[in-house]
Amino acid sequence: MSMINAYAPDDDEKLSTETRDLIARRARVLGPSYRLFYNHPVHVVRAEGVWLYGPGGEAYLDVYNNVAVTGHCHPHVVAAIAKQAAILNTHTRYLNEAVVAFAERLVSKLPDDISQVMFACTGSEANDLALRVARAHTGGMGVIVTETAYHGVTHAIAELSPSLGKGVPIGAHVRTVPAPRSTGDVGNEFAVGVKAALTDLRSAGIKPVALLVDTAFSSDGLFVEPKGFLREAVAAVREAGAIFIADEVQAGYGRLGEAFFGFERHGLVPDLVTMGKPMGAGHPLAAVAGKPGVLETFGRTSRYFNTFGGNPVSCAAGMAVLDVIEQQDLMGNALRVGGAMRAAITDIGSGVVKEVRGAGLFIGVELVDADCAARVVNGLRERRVLISATGPNANVLKVRPPLVFGMEHAEIFLDALRAELALL
Amino acid sequence: MSMINAYAPDDDEKLSTETRDLIARRARVLGPSYRLFYNHPVHVVRAEGVWLYGPGGEAYLDVYNNVAVTGHCHPHVVAAIAKQAAILNTHTRYLNEAVVAFAERLVSKLPDDISQVMFACTGSEANDLALRVARAHTGGMGVIVTETAYHGVTHAIAELSPSLGKGVPIGAHVRTVPAPRSTGDVGNEFAVGVKAALTDLRSAGIKPVALLVDTAFSSDGLFVEPKGFLREAVAAVREAGAIFIADEVQAGYGRLGEAFFGFERHGLVPDLVTMGKPMGAGHPLAAVAGKPGVLETFGRTSRYFNTFGGNPVSCAAGMAVLDVIEQQDLMGNALRVGGAMRAAITDIGSGVVKEVRGAGLFIGVELVDADCAARVVNGLRERRVLISATGPNANVLKVRPPLVFGMEHAEIFLDALRAELALL
Repeated sequence: MSMINAYAPDDDEKLSTETRDLIARRARVLGPSYRLFYNHPVHVVRAEGVWLYGPGGEAYLDVYNNVAVTGHCHPHVVAAIAKQAAILNTHTRYLNEAVVAFAERLVSKLPDDISQVMFACTGSEANDLALRVARAHTGGMGVIVTETAYHGVTHAIAELSPSLGKGVPIGAHVRTVPAPRSTGDVGNEFAVGVKAALTDLRSAGIKPVALLVDTAFSSDGLFVEPKGFLREAVAAVREAGAIFIADEVQAGYGRLGEAFFGFERHGLVPDLVTMGKPMGAGHPLAAVAGKPGVLETFGRTSRYFNTFGGNPVSCAAGMAVLDVIEQQDLMGNALRVGGAMRAAITDIGSGVVKEVRGAGLFIGVELVDADCAARVVNGLRERRVLISATGPNANVLKVRPPLVFGMEHAEIFLDALRAELALL
Repeated sequence: MSMINAYAPDDDEKLSTETRDLIARRARVLGPSYRLFYNHPVHVVRAEGVWLYGPGGEAYLDVYNNVAVTGHCHPHVVAAIAKQAAILNTHTRYLNEAVVAFAERLVSKLPDDISQVMFACTGSEANDLALRVARAHTGGMGVIVTETAYHGVTHAIAELSPSLGKGVPIGAHVRTVPAPRSTGDVGNEFAVGVKAALTDLRSAGIKPVALLVDTAFSSDGLFVEPKGFLREAVAAVREAGAIFIADEVQAGYGRLGEAFFGFERHGLVPDLVTMGKPMGAGHPLAAVAGKPGVLETFGRTSRYFNTFGGNPVSCAAGMAVLDVIEQQDLMGNALRVGGAMRAAITDIGSGVVKEVRGAGLFIGVELVDADCAARVVNGLRERRVLISATGPNANVLKVRPPLVFGMEHAEIFLDALRAELALL
């Protein structure tokens, strides 16, 4: 099965004996579903800030990992995990202040109407739970996602994730819509697709449940402008009795600079919000937040318990990540550094760059084709600068560093990018 | 929706103002799907070994929590997490020794044929992934579970978990079979049920995929004897072209004393094995292990990536837990202390005790009815001894302490149990 920027086991000419041995052991014991990044895989042994380090001490600039939102191994986050792990790490069926206090803090980051939260361990679990809640609330089955959506790997969510490829068919109750474009009447065109999907669901006798989108459309190639373009589609969905679920696993947590969550840039209040990756800066932590009226039916018909979700250590990690985002003004940093990077990439004026998109420290650089993108991604890796690619045609460079990425790091990235683009 | 041993919000006469306030804040922000244990909820602030501590320093004996398999906050596990969190916490698309070494160690605990492993963060995710693998391997949809099974909370796995209650209907492609009994020809009777389910699936045009059982039948009321009783049912399942998935989330990791996994007591090699709760002693860690031939189709048609699954910190936690189980001989302890406890409970000779079942430190005490069980569970809680109840009739005391539970702790539990049973 294809994956953008996946290592293929015969690309091994550049590998050391040690690396080849580790790859062979890994393939033997992890099995055939695992993938590595890059033609020349990256072996890491430690990390700090925006740097990953190989076994020989070689430093890789991390321009890709959103999970390490605070920078890798941020001392405040590490200390919070270490401290709480030594005190208490149990579940939510005993009373404990940690889960309540963290839930209250998370809710304070959300619009007033979204006042309740449920914890899980991964973005997949959060989206799966949101789907269960949405189906209980609406009594239907039909879900609308974009053509190259990725929402996770559980059975029910893989069916909503066409980016997993043809080997994982979308569900019979799922309709896909074209992703937003970057020109024209974006909002109206996206809404036309969503309205057609609603009509199609109803004509098949399937009650619409939800429009579920990543509010940065990351796997579709990154589409965040113009602000507000989601509103017409969401209005149509609500008119049809369905709800709007904002998947903030990638867009949320300050990455877009101006707003903590991607949906805010559209002037929308979702019915459910899912979040994950950066929440614990690597510690497994995810959540579904929602309006009480939307959560009510699920609460009446089903109890919810996630053994590790919302445990005190996860909540301590979550609190520490929010501390760092707020105290180090990482949103302001994302806005400043991301803006300067987009302008600088545009200024390169390369003939292979079709468009530079994004907001804050989430940047998509659309190249003319997938071959160019693969050459840039692998060329940057040889320069020890780590990015990846995305989009239905695998031709969009995905630039998504930790939010502590400074102008000094941007300069290193830009120099390497200029050099790689000049080779094309 | 009903749950065994759930706090109902009007049972508040015993609660302090502080506890009532925390419950109110919790209900406001976590919403209606969350449950607390006990008529009089337990508020915990720290834990160590087999003890949980309340805000006033009051000590509760933990005779329930299997997750804290090494005892709460075991220093070796805490140190491993703290150390690795400060060094590297990234994902499996870079090469790293930690995930390979942990996978190799886990596989060394399994039969030779089961040589590959995939990591997730929760038992729900592990069972969900096993189901995807099984469906890819067999090309079918039909799954057989027991009548009061619990396998997790994802959309697909909740459909296989009748213990969640009538509010969460089982799937159209799911057949339930009676749980094993504790007398008669257990193996043959269980196989008769499974064969009937296979016939029923085929007559409905549904290709059988798997028999999925918790090898201790925990939510069915705990049935572990006689060893080997699963073999006839598993043979029938394989003859029908389906596979056997052993859910070891509760039974595995040494709890049953004689064997690291529950399936070993039956002289069986499963096609897939799922595990979770105790793996990281509270750190979110779960896995699916399997035969390469069973994983092959899924590997060819679908990539698998779990952002946090198998990250270096999870693997460090997992390694440390295995260290403690091996170095402190927790399986030997489970065998000795569990055996003595079962004998002592039998010796109480209470008229309300119908049967004492179990293996190692997993003990089920079947009482005459649910009311008796609820009175004992809540009575023990007032004596600061924590257990719960299980089974289709909620009448089986569930005794499942951390595996560092010693004879001195068993004596405290037994004294409290004798006193509560004498009140009935």
